[in-house]
Amino acid sequence: MEKYEAVFKSLLESFQSNSASTEEKNVEDEIPVGVSNRHTHLSQADLNSLFGEGYQLSKTKDLSQPGQYACKETVTICGPNGAIEKVRILGPVRGMTQVEILEGDCYKLGVTTEPRLSGDLKLTNGITIVGPKGTVRIPEGLIVAQRHIHMTPMDAERYGVHDGQMVSIEVDGPRGGVFKNVAIRVTDKSALELHIDMEEANAMNVSSSSKIKLRK
Amino acid sequence: MEKYEAVFKSLLESFQSNSASTEEKNVEDEIPVGVSNRHTHLSQADLNSLFGEGYQLSKTKDLSQPGQYACKETVTICGPNGAIEKVRILGPVRGMTQVEILEGDCYKLGVTTEPRLSGDLKLTNGITIVGPKGTVRIPEGLIVAQRHIHMTPMDAERYGVHDGQMVSIEVDGPRGGVFKNVAIRVTDKSALELHIDMEEANAMNVSSSSKIKLRK
Repeated sequence: MEKYEAVFKSLLESFQSNSASTEEKNVEDEIPVGVSNRHTHLSQADLNSLFGEGYQLSKTKDLSQPGQYACKETVTICGPNGAIEKVRILGPVRGMTQVEILEGDCYKLGVTTEPRLSGDLKLTNGITIVGPKGTVRIPEGLIVAQRHIHMTPMDAERYGVHDGQMVSIEVDGPRGGVFKNVAIRVTDKSALELHIDMEEANAMNVSSSSKIKLRK
Repeated sequence: MEKYEAVFKSLLESFQSNSASTEEKNVEDEIPVGVSNRHTHLSQADLNSLFGEGYQLSKTKDLSQPGQYACKETVTICGPNGAIEKVRILGPVRGMTQVEILEGDCYKLGVTTEPRLSGDLKLTNGITIVGPKGTVRIPEGLIVAQRHIHMTPMDAERYGVHDGQMVSIEVDGPRGGVFKNVAIRVTDKSALELHIDMEEANAMNVSSSSKIKLRK
């Protein structure tokens, strides 16, 4: 993960250093990128079951999206064919537990899933989560994250897009290409950032020098 | 790997069943896909060092490209930060040893690499290979496979492309998109097939129902 954290940091710093002049930028602006490994968001009820009643998560690092953070705690996720250990918990707790895996994890776990946006869990598969104090079987909530771009209403206006719109992103470089079906997510409290997972980043060899552009 | 073998098989069968009518097909034809996990090709000298003098590889399965096969034997590859076990050997032996990894393996091994076509090993990094009878340190030959399409001269004529040309491929589906910089490889003894690695396949969610098209 350090590799991607470095990529993210460098791009975030670049974004932050430019943010004062945001309004002068045009739609050719490159978009900062955050790369996710498998991780989970837990409800307080499931956190209680896994770590003990009233347990509070320990933040180790703020993430790019305001209020979101990586935690010290990890869990094991178990499917019918196998388990994956040390799956990072991201805080704060949410209304519903969800587990975001990589497509490449499906075979090891013995599960299938599909790309979904965070929180869109209806009719997704379940999975077993094991923590130090207990085990939870969620009936649904296992997803592969659908690639998406977080932005504020001001960013959306600048790019001429709206919440829920599907766009494409173009990546340069020797392994470059275009990812279609990238969802726009607009909230007042967003930091402009493309979210893709590690397999997507590796397939296009996304690095701190990658130029990533929004295409409608 | 079984998942991808199934994908490949289904697509190969579909291709084979259509091959009688090849000449009637147009450039919109979908291209069969083969998905690779990390693997290695060995020289006889390195095979001797790793498995014993005069060792012969044991074929377990023919691959789609004529004369190529998967072997029973595996090796461990070791970088400065860590090792990956059970890396499959593909036969037959070649003039030079090469190790094809996934971009996502780089961090675990502590190495860097770049997309290269098979056999194009000049100025690539080295790696340590460990077998049951010995260890070999190759001075160069560690690559991430550059995505490519194998085809015969007849296929090349049909698609209007030539050996060494770079094209794009378009993948449909919820995770669809376009991979640029796909190399055309033309030989008399090729089976028409796009070769991508597991991370590339997962990023675009390539499956037996994916429609893959060549774009110039």
